[in-house]
Amino acid sequence: MYQTVVTLPPYPRGFHLITDAIDNAVAASGITTGLAHLFLKHTSASLCINENADPTVRKDMERFFSDVADAKPYYVHTYEGDDDMPAHIKSVMLGTSLTIPVTNGRLNLGTWQGIYLGEHRDHGGSRKIVVTVY
Amino acid sequence: MYQTVVTLPPYPRGFHLITDAIDNAVAASGITTGLAHLFLKHTSASLCINENADPTVRKDMERFFSDVADAKPYYVHTYEGDDDMPAHIKSVMLGTSLTIPVTNGRLNLGTWQGIYLGEHRDHGGSRKIVVTVY
Amino acid sequence: MYQTVVTLPPYPRGFHLITDAIDNAVAASGITTGLAHLFLKHTSASLCINENADPTVRKDMERFFSDVADAKPYYVHTYEGDDDMPAHIKSVMLGTSLTIPVTNGRLNLGTWQGIYLGEHRDHGGSRKIVVTVY
Repeated sequence: MYQTVVTLPPYPRGFHLITDAIDNAVAASGITTGLAHLFLKHTSASLCINENADPTVRKDMERFFSDVADAKPYYVHTYEGDDDMPAHIKSVMLGTSLTIPVTNGRLNLGTWQGIYLGEHRDHGGSRKIVVTVY
Repeated sequence: MYQTVVTLPPYPRGFHLITDAIDNAVAASGITTGLAHLFLKHTSASLCINENADPTVRKDMERFFSDVADAKPYYVHTYEGDDDMPAHIKSVMLGTSLTIPVTNGRLNLGTWQGIYLGEHRDHGGSRKIVVTVY
Repeated sequence: MYQTVVTLPPYPRGFHLITDAIDNAVAASGITTGLAHLFLKHTSASLCINENADPTVRKDMERFFSDVADAKPYYVHTYEGDDDMPAHIKSVMLGTSLTIPVTNGRLNLGTWQGIYLGEHRDHGGSRKIVVTVY
């Protein structure tokens, strides 16, 4: 078992491809067959897997989740800003953890699959992911 | 590998912090570094991770998911009560399984992260979680 | 550790029980106690766990997720068809990966739990799941 922490640079609000950063951490483990577990240590961002080619997919996702979860008149938890409670909602809808097969020392993703960081705050800052390969 | 079952007391409908019950099960495993897998054996409740400090976050989550999923005129599966089909929807949106890193014999959560049970029935009763530490 | 690929036949759009196909792959592993990890290598379908008995639950889920995610006027990623961007959204809302306890050589699911394939394209074709038992 190999465990490391990947520290991402600050990203603007939206969905961002981070496959390469994770694949590098997996390659550094030296483990050729197994599973990689990713765990994002935050409550206002998310991890998911989706289409890695057309950036309009990521833009449409940002529009969709903001349309669904932003600016509800019944939110009470608003003292950290208008983007905070929607960020918590998006984080639980999308999740903060992924487990991906490792084959031949690399992430065994489908052809069109990439790993997304969902940054749901306007100014979320740097995010940390615990990567465990086993 | 260590496997046990955590039996939760009945909770009212809503989101509830259960971090301590899970952390105790992890500590009992004697495993210091690895992963903990939680599996909720129910289809009308959920597990997720979010903000552990302000209870208004959990109340806003209950309001949001009920706003999104309750009382759709097209639901056909209604014979178990008005809260049943929305509970199934919330369960798949939020998920019934979590995998969390274990470090120094404890759950390696972020500062603001807690484990939530989402109880989506009005009277869900006791819920069981299979905890596997490895 | 045992790893195999389950290739599913094409399914129509909607939610479908695939528990038996996965349970057979787990039984073939010869592993009696542990965890089974399922990973769907696609970005327009999903895996989740829910009620295994009444088919109206699966029909209501299809109605709900299509109601929530279909035909948004702001979608830009539309050149692969009207069902494509909604399929990506449903895939990230529901997820493409599951981890399930294995006990006595079988999936340790609750009485009412079954594994669903969510087919979110109108003509999605065959889907592949990497199954890892450990």
